[in-house]
Amino acid sequence: MVRFANSVESMRRSEIRDLMKSASSPGLITFAGGMPNNDLFPIAEIDEIYRGLSLKTKQEGFQYCPTPGYPPLIQSVKQYLREKGFPVDTNELIITTGSLQAIYLLAKVLLNPGDRVVCEYPSFIGAIAAFNSFQARMDTISLDDDGPVMEELEAAFRRTPAPKLLYLTPYFHNPAGIIYSQARKKAVIEFLKDQDVVYLEDNPYGEIYFTEQALELTRPIKVITADAEKICYTGSFSKILGPGMRLGYLLAPPEILAKCELAKQSVDACSATFTQVLAHEFLVQNKLQAYLEFIRPIYARRLKSMLHTLEQSMPSGVSWTKPAGGFYVWVKLPEHLDATKVLKESVQNGAVFVIGQTFDPEARRNNCFRLAFSHVPEDKIEPGIEIIARAVKKFM
Amino acid sequence: MVRFANSVESMRRSEIRDLMKSASSPGLITFAGGMPNNDLFPIAEIDEIYRGLSLKTKQEGFQYCPTPGYPPLIQSVKQYLREKGFPVDTNELIITTGSLQAIYLLAKVLLNPGDRVVCEYPSFIGAIAAFNSFQARMDTISLDDDGPVMEELEAAFRRTPAPKLLYLTPYFHNPAGIIYSQARKKAVIEFLKDQDVVYLEDNPYGEIYFTEQALELTRPIKVITADAEKICYTGSFSKILGPGMRLGYLLAPPEILAKCELAKQSVDACSATFTQVLAHEFLVQNKLQAYLEFIRPIYARRLKSMLHTLEQSMPSGVSWTKPAGGFYVWVKLPEHLDATKVLKESVQNGAVFVIGQTFDPEARRNNCFRLAFSHVPEDKIEPGIEIIARAVKKFM
Repeated sequence: MVRFANSVESMRRSEIRDLMKSASSPGLITFAGGMPNNDLFPIAEIDEIYRGLSLKTKQEGFQYCPTPGYPPLIQSVKQYLREKGFPVDTNELIITTGSLQAIYLLAKVLLNPGDRVVCEYPSFIGAIAAFNSFQARMDTISLDDDGPVMEELEAAFRRTPAPKLLYLTPYFHNPAGIIYSQARKKAVIEFLKDQDVVYLEDNPYGEIYFTEQALELTRPIKVITADAEKICYTGSFSKILGPGMRLGYLLAPPEILAKCELAKQSVDACSATFTQVLAHEFLVQNKLQAYLEFIRPIYARRLKSMLHTLEQSMPSGVSWTKPAGGFYVWVKLPEHLDATKVLKESVQNGAVFVIGQTFDPEARRNNCFRLAFSHVPEDKIEPGIEIIARAVKKFM
Repeated sequence: MVRFANSVESMRRSEIRDLMKSASSPGLITFAGGMPNNDLFPIAEIDEIYRGLSLKTKQEGFQYCPTPGYPPLIQSVKQYLREKGFPVDTNELIITTGSLQAIYLLAKVLLNPGDRVVCEYPSFIGAIAAFNSFQARMDTISLDDDGPVMEELEAAFRRTPAPKLLYLTPYFHNPAGIIYSQARKKAVIEFLKDQDVVYLEDNPYGEIYFTEQALELTRPIKVITADAEKICYTGSFSKILGPGMRLGYLLAPPEILAKCELAKQSVDACSATFTQVLAHEFLVQNKLQAYLEFIRPIYARRLKSMLHTLEQSMPSGVSWTKPAGGFYVWVKLPEHLDATKVLKESVQNGAVFVIGQTFDPEARRNNCFRLAFSHVPEDKIEPGIEIIARAVKKFM
């Protein structure tokens, strides 16, 4: 018998793998995959970039790069962030293997077993997996349509021992779909001033806004509180280029970032240089803005179709968020109704989604579910939602 | 002040980053970088592969893949391993972000703070970093020209508590340059039969052999003991395609591999799909063998030049390994001589290498150093070694 580490007991199997399988089952309409649409990747742009690479640059792409990242990409990401008002000159940047690795590295350098992390309910499944893998205790604060419920946030920080990490995803939340209101964001910022905690702001979807009004709300806390000492920020190339590049970044105060770099030396030494070369060219050849302008209305149209069908087909007593960006709609059933029942019925009739329990750091609450409108074929949104609505009705 | 995790205290800064910097200093001849030569990457082959990719395959390359890896690559790596006699059907395979991540994941699922790992002195710097990051205690066993000193191996396993992990690099060792003899490998296999320990066999350089005789010695313990329950094996694409692809793999018994996959879900979800697509095509288009046949004599010629110059220029009392493959020569100074002194003198005169202490899990012994013949321009080997030999003579 193999004697595994204690931390293995805390690792919960995320359902991602099974969902990927079901997502590829022929005939099944899937709202499960939290991923961009395959037809929308900027393949022509990357083809053009690849053709234009010099031999020397390709050679660099085949080689190791320094642990913090391919130096030209570090500069181009800093420039991208500088234009948005980020304090790139007083902070340091590291390129990570997806933004998940940024969360993981920060967890690795901060958390002893039993340490407390405060996060939202619902929360990003990858972050839950990372915190669990270090045997952290997760306290959750509920989200309403404007952001975290402040009373719960305050209560979480009154409990002892003091939390070491606060993890939030304020912009087009996965899975909740919401964006924090100006007032709520301000309340969070005020609250943070009095707390001795590392705050990690996770923003993979901020560029996928559908209205000018939503754009205004995407100004990050890291930008607004540029001189704060313990605010870390992670972003990703997964939604603005492709998850298969496995590229994200962490912008953090130098003391914290130095430890994360040290941790990364033990995890994978550096992220793929080859895809970093491509991402750098994507940024410096100014292909990002045009690409974002191309995909935003497409995702907005998909969302509109989903919201319209939900409105038409869901029984009363069921509610859902009306996102202004991102990939997800979060559906709330009456409290007594178990989303797993609905899922089983729904799968039998040909449509699949992810149950709410998956996104609960406490793995408990299950009267909600997530619908991704990003990956499903657009003409399947209406029939798929109708299948799910019929399944819901059966149990109401 | 940020309150970091206890494990941060165990993380030692590897000198990789500083070495990368010094390696790119103009005018400095560097034997430091443990990496392939930029001029030798199979760029024409990858260009051809990229041009031939279908739109659908490219789309897959931009997308997430399942945590264990891009399914076609899993199959093609299994086929590659099957042809070498590996027990791929009774074990499971996961694609990792470099073989370093395979070591890291295994450490993550096995090691509690204070757990014992038995490894070689000298040992791979990345593995030392991974074990340190989990606060493991490392017991070292010395290497002679034939492999690990068996008395030391036996002694390490007599101490309590029992070690949880045995980590060896039997083939063209980094940094020692040796390959285990048949007799010593047999002794290790016999010894392992009686031990309740997970054994990780790390083999990134096995394909870089320079003689037929050396090839015979590269048959892995994992192949020879195919039915053993706790033997894990990691390989890498870093030396047979390019480290910038960040691809390696772990072949392990299903129980162990399932935990590693769970751990990987929290670390980076999956390795870069884009580079996995390229690696798969590299294998199935049969480009690997031709590429290996192209690079082996080039690296062999570089080694020959290094050994010849060492013979000509080093004073008596200094010895070094005569590798039959891989990238490294390991130089032993008299016990009283500190390699750091030699390094400083040598750098002042224009040549750099890595001191032995870097490869000592106990960070103590420092009368040796590593010379990489892989990355330095070939015509700089002779003048570079002469600089180092003069520096050695100064302190003899």
